[in-house]
Amino acid sequence: MGRTLTRSILPFFLFATCASAQAQQRPASPAESDPVTMGWMQGSPPPDDKVVRQEDGSYYQFPRTRWAFSNMRTLFPTANLQRGDGPPSALSRQLRNDLDAVTFLPLGSNKPMRWDEALQASYADAILVLHRGNIVYERYFGVTKQHTPHMSFSMTKSYYGTLAAMLVEEALLDEKQTVAHYIPELVESGFGDATVRQILDMTTAIHYSEDYSDPKADVFAFALAGGIFPRPNDYEGPDGYYAYLSTLRKEGEHGSQFVYKSVNTEVLGWLIARVTGRNPVDVIQERIWGRLGSEEDAYILVDSHGTGWAAGGLNATLRDHARFGEMMRQDGQFNGQQIVPKKVVQAIRYGASKTDFAKAGYKTLPGWSYRNQWWVSHNRNGAFAARGVHGQTIYIDPAAEMVIVRLASHPLAANANIDYVSLPAYQAIADRLSGQ
Amino acid sequence: MGRTLTRSILPFFLFATCASAQAQQRPASPAESDPVTMGWMQGSPPPDDKVVRQEDGSYYQFPRTRWAFSNMRTLFPTANLQRGDGPPSALSRQLRNDLDAVTFLPLGSNKPMRWDEALQASYADAILVLHRGNIVYERYFGVTKQHTPHMSFSMTKSYYGTLAAMLVEEALLDEKQTVAHYIPELVESGFGDATVRQILDMTTAIHYSEDYSDPKADVFAFALAGGIFPRPNDYEGPDGYYAYLSTLRKEGEHGSQFVYKSVNTEVLGWLIARVTGRNPVDVIQERIWGRLGSEEDAYILVDSHGTGWAAGGLNATLRDHARFGEMMRQDGQFNGQQIVPKKVVQAIRYGASKTDFAKAGYKTLPGWSYRNQWWVSHNRNGAFAARGVHGQTIYIDPAAEMVIVRLASHPLAANANIDYVSLPAYQAIADRLSGQ
Repeated sequence: MGRTLTRSILPFFLFATCASAQAQQRPASPAESDPVTMGWMQGSPPPDDKVVRQEDGSYYQFPRTRWAFSNMRTLFPTANLQRGDGPPSALSRQLRNDLDAVTFLPLGSNKPMRWDEALQASYADAILVLHRGNIVYERYFGVTKQHTPHMSFSMTKSYYGTLAAMLVEEALLDEKQTVAHYIPELVESGFGDATVRQILDMTTAIHYSEDYSDPKADVFAFALAGGIFPRPNDYEGPDGYYAYLSTLRKEGEHGSQFVYKSVNTEVLGWLIARVTGRNPVDVIQERIWGRLGSEEDAYILVDSHGTGWAAGGLNATLRDHARFGEMMRQDGQFNGQQIVPKKVVQAIRYGASKTDFAKAGYKTLPGWSYRNQWWVSHNRNGAFAARGVHGQTIYIDPAAEMVIVRLASHPLAANANIDYVSLPAYQAIADRLSGQ
Repeated sequence: MGRTLTRSILPFFLFATCASAQAQQRPASPAESDPVTMGWMQGSPPPDDKVVRQEDGSYYQFPRTRWAFSNMRTLFPTANLQRGDGPPSALSRQLRNDLDAVTFLPLGSNKPMRWDEALQASYADAILVLHRGNIVYERYFGVTKQHTPHMSFSMTKSYYGTLAAMLVEEALLDEKQTVAHYIPELVESGFGDATVRQILDMTTAIHYSEDYSDPKADVFAFALAGGIFPRPNDYEGPDGYYAYLSTLRKEGEHGSQFVYKSVNTEVLGWLIARVTGRNPVDVIQERIWGRLGSEEDAYILVDSHGTGWAAGGLNATLRDHARFGEMMRQDGQFNGQQIVPKKVVQAIRYGASKTDFAKAGYKTLPGWSYRNQWWVSHNRNGAFAARGVHGQTIYIDPAAEMVIVRLASHPLAANANIDYVSLPAYQAIADRLSGQ
């Protein structure tokens, strides 16, 4: 009581430096960092050292993240994506008890690992495997339950990208047009002369760093503008995602290579808003979310102007992400209707230039590309994925008729830290389900 | 862009003084203040003068309230009350087109008014009349739709009060025990020697002013502690609802009269947390909300410690409040089950001491009493109600087999400003439905 809130910028730098510090020291194990065991937010009121707060940035410090990622709406303002009327679409359960023992070789290792060990390695909060639309595997850990929307981070981009691709298909959005054509406010920014296609595939050349291990990276200024990180008292920076975008400048030539910069997706959200005349969150609800037969409402973090965080703010349950993935696996058909045109899904699966992608240097993703805000493997199974930091994924394997959704709270942001386990693990499950 | 947030205490005083200022000047009419017409939050992004913000307190300034009360989650952190599994409970529609023309005499007036005029006078955002469980009247205005949870303000108290009364009935909570018995942290506060019964019926004697027209009223310190009003940069007051309660002192003797002080309900929430060992929000979800066959999730505003605002933070849709009301009308029976014990509902309907209530001097509520956080009319129809500032009500009329729910955004907080219209209007509808 009477405790002054430290509304300083310190915690955000603390986090930023933590990312590299954690690489050096062993973080708490999944069992040690289990949010129930840790006792976060237990008690009435929880004792000071068990409170997970937004104002001091502690929500984004591991291991508090293991509670926070399943409780984001209790920390931030959010907008709702209503589940739609009618009953949830059916997902039959045909559990496969053999999957836990499936083994695989992590990339660069010759020591076999089991599927259930891989779950531990990824700090999974929840994981589900669909085979031919049936649930064959489903597990929840910590505070994450069937009804719990979990932070999706950049998986959000794939929802926005899919919607935008639908608008391109409908000719409401012209992929050859420039950003400035639709958003005159961005004409002076680095985005002004980028095309819609370059935004969709992240081949813009923008002076913007998303290196989480660099305390001076622009991603933190971006987070301050959106209100995701607590603002210092003397903050005078841009207020809101759109305001921030106008501050960014060009660096090089658009269209020459893939560079993963989340700000592209904020531009995409703005484009959707301009051509539909509506809040993109409502359009996603109407065109996609509300038609999937979702079990639960989803929600998205919003800034002080009511703008949803297009690059990372969606929160949804495990099963509902699986419905979205299954819809994509079935070329847009799900819950008795064509939700996304087949042509749109096929273009995503076809991917983009592997050469452009290779320039970005993702060691765990050789031969991949990035199309319409989706990651495309170009592997023998034709797998493609939505991916978010700290281990979020919707992994769609058309050849194996499989969709895997994993929600996680890995101590490190970059998925490169767990891909070496996850990607071979997914392939091994695909092989088992395909009878190989 | 680059605009500094004025995180000052000014807007909150602004609001406080507005309440008395508005009494002198005519506020914008319902049509003039329609939130769609006003254009709040329209545009991508909305222009500065159309943004409804939390940080500057503008969300609580009429006419912005007409948008904000239907969009609270986009402004504040919230906790979810999941609707439960299974289909929504049925509410058949048997619309009565004759109700708009029902006339009545406002209190102290000899000029008849029509029901549809009364809706205007109350700045209704949504209103529904159930007769024998069927929807006979349902209207939505402005930005409030069937799927929109709306701010309930003090109707929230009736949900907490009903749950607490259930716990008393189960002997988990002893109404004769003192608050300090369950919450040692409050032993030094004014609540320490108050009984659970006194908390339930608001007959505690606490030095605390809830006069919204007084800028120095304690209710604003309370709002700052809970984060409902924006805190100034140099804020050093209590952080969270529970922390605030400890600061309050006694003034007089408990049990001698009814005095409406919202802080009692925060104590009630804390009592529920202590005896159940759980977050009261989750208990309300499990014991009440999730069993009503609600159409939508509800949500509640939470403070920085995850504590729900028991006195006023619930947001729910019109129809779902109606389900709660219909359950109470049917002595706790609804959706094929006994949700609240009959004895608990009957005790609420029986009410409390009219003499104790009369001392509070509510001119529009002669002969009423307050029991377990419900307002009891003791009129010939046995009506009782949940009530919240700015025009919220669930009005239950057992004799007429009627439930009325009104969600509103009246410019003035106190319901005394609209009771003179609303209460005779409800009676006139009750009479019409009863064939009188």
